[in-house]
Amino acid sequence: MSASRSGSRVGVWLIGARGSVATTVVAGCAAVSAGLHPPTGMVTETAAFTDSGLPALPSLVFGGHDTVDCPLPKRAEELAAGGVLPPGLPTAVESELAAADREIRPGGPLPGDTRDEPALIASFTHDIQDFVRRHDLTRAVVVNVASTEPASTGAALPPSSLYAAAALRAGCPYVNFTPSTGLHHPELAALAAESALPYAGRDGKTGQTLLRAALAPMFTQRALAVRAWSGTNLLGGGDGAALADPEAAAAKNAGKERVLADTLGTPPEGEVHIDDVPALGDWKTAWDHIAFDGFLGTRMILQTIWQGCDSALAAPLILDLARLTARAHERGLSGPLSALGFYFKDPVGSGPAALADQYAELVRFGDVLRGGEGEGR
Amino acid sequence: MSASRSGSRVGVWLIGARGSVATTVVAGCAAVSAGLHPPTGMVTETAAFTDSGLPALPSLVFGGHDTVDCPLPKRAEELAAGGVLPPGLPTAVESELAAADREIRPGGPLPGDTRDEPALIASFTHDIQDFVRRHDLTRAVVVNVASTEPASTGAALPPSSLYAAAALRAGCPYVNFTPSTGLHHPELAALAAESALPYAGRDGKTGQTLLRAALAPMFTQRALAVRAWSGTNLLGGGDGAALADPEAAAAKNAGKERVLADTLGTPPEGEVHIDDVPALGDWKTAWDHIAFDGFLGTRMILQTIWQGCDSALAAPLILDLARLTARAHERGLSGPLSALGFYFKDPVGSGPAALADQYAELVRFGDVLRGGEGEGR
Amino acid sequence: MSASRSGSRVGVWLIGARGSVATTVVAGCAAVSAGLHPPTGMVTETAAFTDSGLPALPSLVFGGHDTVDCPLPKRAEELAAGGVLPPGLPTAVESELAAADREIRPGGPLPGDTRDEPALIASFTHDIQDFVRRHDLTRAVVVNVASTEPASTGAALPPSSLYAAAALRAGCPYVNFTPSTGLHHPELAALAAESALPYAGRDGKTGQTLLRAALAPMFTQRALAVRAWSGTNLLGGGDGAALADPEAAAAKNAGKERVLADTLGTPPEGEVHIDDVPALGDWKTAWDHIAFDGFLGTRMILQTIWQGCDSALAAPLILDLARLTARAHERGLSGPLSALGFYFKDPVGSGPAALADQYAELVRFGDVLRGGEGEGR
Amino acid sequence: MSASRSGSRVGVWLIGARGSVATTVVAGCAAVSAGLHPPTGMVTETAAFTDSGLPALPSLVFGGHDTVDCPLPKRAEELAAGGVLPPGLPTAVESELAAADREIRPGGPLPGDTRDEPALIASFTHDIQDFVRRHDLTRAVVVNVASTEPASTGAALPPSSLYAAAALRAGCPYVNFTPSTGLHHPELAALAAESALPYAGRDGKTGQTLLRAALAPMFTQRALAVRAWSGTNLLGGGDGAALADPEAAAAKNAGKERVLADTLGTPPEGEVHIDDVPALGDWKTAWDHIAFDGFLGTRMILQTIWQGCDSALAAPLILDLARLTARAHERGLSGPLSALGFYFKDPVGSGPAALADQYAELVRFGDVLRGGEGEGR
Repeated sequence: MSASRSGSRVGVWLIGARGSVATTVVAGCAAVSAGLHPPTGMVTETAAFTDSGLPALPSLVFGGHDTVDCPLPKRAEELAAGGVLPPGLPTAVESELAAADREIRPGGPLPGDTRDEPALIASFTHDIQDFVRRHDLTRAVVVNVASTEPASTGAALPPSSLYAAAALRAGCPYVNFTPSTGLHHPELAALAAESALPYAGRDGKTGQTLLRAALAPMFTQRALAVRAWSGTNLLGGGDGAALADPEAAAAKNAGKERVLADTLGTPPEGEVHIDDVPALGDWKTAWDHIAFDGFLGTRMILQTIWQGCDSALAAPLILDLARLTARAHERGLSGPLSALGFYFKDPVGSGPAALADQYAELVRFGDVLRGGEGEGR
Repeated sequence: MSASRSGSRVGVWLIGARGSVATTVVAGCAAVSAGLHPPTGMVTETAAFTDSGLPALPSLVFGGHDTVDCPLPKRAEELAAGGVLPPGLPTAVESELAAADREIRPGGPLPGDTRDEPALIASFTHDIQDFVRRHDLTRAVVVNVASTEPASTGAALPPSSLYAAAALRAGCPYVNFTPSTGLHHPELAALAAESALPYAGRDGKTGQTLLRAALAPMFTQRALAVRAWSGTNLLGGGDGAALADPEAAAAKNAGKERVLADTLGTPPEGEVHIDDVPALGDWKTAWDHIAFDGFLGTRMILQTIWQGCDSALAAPLILDLARLTARAHERGLSGPLSALGFYFKDPVGSGPAALADQYAELVRFGDVLRGGEGEGR
Repeated sequence: MSASRSGSRVGVWLIGARGSVATTVVAGCAAVSAGLHPPTGMVTETAAFTDSGLPALPSLVFGGHDTVDCPLPKRAEELAAGGVLPPGLPTAVESELAAADREIRPGGPLPGDTRDEPALIASFTHDIQDFVRRHDLTRAVVVNVASTEPASTGAALPPSSLYAAAALRAGCPYVNFTPSTGLHHPELAALAAESALPYAGRDGKTGQTLLRAALAPMFTQRALAVRAWSGTNLLGGGDGAALADPEAAAAKNAGKERVLADTLGTPPEGEVHIDDVPALGDWKTAWDHIAFDGFLGTRMILQTIWQGCDSALAAPLILDLARLTARAHERGLSGPLSALGFYFKDPVGSGPAALADQYAELVRFGDVLRGGEGEGR
Repeated sequence: MSASRSGSRVGVWLIGARGSVATTVVAGCAAVSAGLHPPTGMVTETAAFTDSGLPALPSLVFGGHDTVDCPLPKRAEELAAGGVLPPGLPTAVESELAAADREIRPGGPLPGDTRDEPALIASFTHDIQDFVRRHDLTRAVVVNVASTEPASTGAALPPSSLYAAAALRAGCPYVNFTPSTGLHHPELAALAAESALPYAGRDGKTGQTLLRAALAPMFTQRALAVRAWSGTNLLGGGDGAALADPEAAAAKNAGKERVLADTLGTPPEGEVHIDDVPALGDWKTAWDHIAFDGFLGTRMILQTIWQGCDSALAAPLILDLARLTARAHERGLSGPLSALGFYFKDPVGSGPAALADQYAELVRFGDVLRGGEGEGR
């Protein structure tokens, strides 16, 4: 009997649980569950996934780690003031926000933290297991939505990898929605393999790269020669500040470039800039300039301007991924879930790069999750 | 033995043979055949169609109807001065332009023309048959690339339908690259059915609509709610003037709207404007503004600006269509070629609306054309 | 002794007093007076007008005519929900909104209204005079901020002209912030002349035209040849619907074109579209595409995209105009205030068209209002 | 008697004489002199300068320094192939190009050059003086249009300063159209002062910064609060490669930022990127994103996209500057010509920053050059 039919409950453990994205995830799940808003942006609520056995939204229980203190209800008020959440929503779902807030444990390493790596992993593992036990959850999924960390240097495991290790230790599927290292660390390879847990990532495809994955195939299909693809991203919020760090931006840009190289066959000229513009708050503007050659070398240009709210773009995808990964776990799938490339800039496993092909693969995955005799186990 | 392997030659009879598009088709075919330019923009020159038995570019022979007199070599010089053709090209392919020019016959009805409809059709049919005979062509394809005609009113057949009837009478496959009526006239339905000829159309998807067909599925796949899709097209050249006529624009806009309605499921708010801006010459700018809702009703916006040269965008598709349709004829296919929806705003037959799906169908059609035992006859 | 130094109070009588603009005017005046917001967008609060003797913001008393019933506090809540007003503002200034609401009288003619023109004018005049008397106002200014009315046809005075006549009858300066006829009616010419009242208008320059007035002079100063200037406006709200009426749009577009013709010397190619896009609410997007020739005929392009909130753009200008016009009245100025061309698309009187020149003239007008010996009468 | 009335001839000595800009200057001066093209983009050919006594275009004689060898006629052909010059122009003005080409002398220091600074300056001075003597020129103006050099480090004079010193030694007015150091070097201050020659610069305002100087005052005049002004420039050609060097870009960006700080009062948030995109050739695209607050803190956005050809934008300004500076020299003016701030990002002397004010000052300068009794001599 599947989770969605049993009344059993599924945990969603968020790394970065007090950030804009996490707050929007918790508030949004409550709002959609209560029928206050339609499930816009959630692919798992479309007809293609009706019978896939996904856990129902009201069955999700939220918790997580964070290194800051601001309570979720307050964070939600801030987001509403900035136009990221609808004005009345924080009040309407205050109890759900408060409930999730009670399940947030201190992350780390904090400044002056004396715990070594094994101790941190053990502590995080315990937090997750305790969450599962206290709520009597059938299973929990760990999702990294923390700010992008600088590229790792040296032998030490970066924080994102400590959390990933804890997820595996706790027996939880793991999803990395950021460009941070997470499970992509050589020291975690053996652990990932022996855990036989499903995992997905890396770096959610929410704006400019989503658009690139939709547009680049058009040029290939029409045999048009892309000469240069340049882009600039303006964003405020925490992510803007984090990505203004060239080390952090490097990881993000690698993912963006992979999309173009994979869909066009060869990486075109052109750079990508990520600017921290605090005045924009959680809103993001991405300008792309694509110079391409047509017949007889005629030079043409396409420009796109994408103005979106990162949290609102990411949150429904996080809910999708938590549900899909939980169900994959229930169905006994393990290892890299390459069928989830639709969601990521730099997907695990091997799969197509064009958005339409990734969507088709996702829909097929919905069929796999539905399961039949002899399948999936 | 297929056309491409036999040395046999295939005719391409262009309605509107002295226009920018037709001139670019003739000059471009010669330039690519001579190795002066790569076949950028020609899908039929990509790997997917290598073995499809398409007529080779050098085997194509051009002729057509037009109501104006300007010789093709002169027209090509004008296009080069406007940056539509590369500077030296008209000189380099002058003999091919002159050869095609000799095969252009007066179209109609001309002002003061006393011929009735049957007489015009008979005259056009004779012109085409004479062309095929004199050049000993294996077959010829008729392609309408004339300026968009005002929406038909009353019982009379519009000129595009007279030419379409002549194509069928002459036993030629027919392609309508414009929004004009062509074969879409009730009086021609029986003729089309009994002719057992393959045909394709309508209204080439070269710029804004191409982009819409690539982008709209992204919104659907991501479950984002498109609220309004507005657009403005600025273009000079003959097409700008023709489409400034609201009657002519109406036909074109119907095709554009069909793409959105078919890919989004329901037509969004928003209008499309087509402005005649002579200062732009053959260059076209299309601005699109897409207002969509994300999670929790967050309002976001995508804008696109496409700057292209219509002739350079259309010409390689005309060559593609002529080759594909000629081969379909050789393979004995008949009726609406719905697999060619990739090329059109308002495709004949039934097929998918998303560009990626249309491309997949086109590639499958390439396999069908290749043929195997027992297939296609 | 000037109004600002005396504690005397000045009335602002708004035609269209329940609309988005009027609501923002009333709420904004209260918010700035209370120090809740800085006076962003109000030119009269900059250093150049410090000593011009303008009535202080807290001395303004609001009233007006409207044909709809929605109370101002409710209207303000709607605007806050749509992001036009800050979330908490309607509550913070509720008493000021309620006070203004009590001073709104029914406009006309209403459907089925049996009053003739003289009766309507008399009724409106009485409403204004009653307002002045009851509040013991030193003077009142009448400002038209109602939705654009269709172009007048026939001999009847359009509603905007009835209100304008009432303003003059009541001895009030008049400002027309819309493209409607207002005082621009031949029947009102004599009345305007004999009233010896100052008046200003027509059609506030808030977005696309403001930008055009700033940019067009650049081309002239640099001797660059503008070939075509095309534009599309997308807007929802009441104004979008009103201007989707071609008759209403015609008046508006005339103003827009005047700016280009006046600043460039000759009107360029290009059209302007105004689309009603309800999904945008009070937000407006204006796209402009300017094709220009540089040295040796090189073709270049400038595009601008303006995304603004019409009410927030208009409201501070209304407050500016009310204060400037009230002070002009106090100083005994009469007739068309051509020095206020900075604010309008189609200014009364004669003045420069370039924004910088209009600004210089406005600053000089601030000096005139300050007054000195022997000046101003 | 002024140069323009006497048949006397004036030299224009270009540093970087074989570059795109210089080639366009020489070809363009010939083309306009011959009546092949109107003087689009030349402010000095407008009515405001009719009687200013400027040297006539046909009286200008061109020469210069460069470190590369490509002959000007060949360079012009390349520019025509890239769409920078009209197709037939290089042939039409070949003799003028060849004449200028004969007057180009090797610049320096070349790789392996053993000459020390004084020797280089002496050599350059001799070249200029020889040019003046052989052509019997009344005077010559030296204009730096070479690629931007990396920011100077250490005590050595950068090449641009060696040329500037040579200009002064040769008794020639000097114009620096680039962000390179030129006369802005402490070692040259005394020489500049004692030479009593007029000079102008620095860094021509041709595209994005021109637009910023036109637009930024609009925000100030309307009391709108600019929160962030971000920009990205894409350009190919030599300048793209030169400015991809962060050291070179730093000098350029300083000028861009100065314009915003000077016109807005305070520098807003936001960065400027300059990307080398070889696929764009001499064409340049500049995207600007301006986030500003309106009334009650409402957030609005203006975006601009400028697509221009740098050589075509710069060349007419070079001709303007050569003529104005030559006439200033004739009229006995000396020192920094602050009235020419209209042309520069980082003008010498003190003057207004808003484009309209700079234009007014330029027009007044035209009056000064015209001269009257007792003036200028």
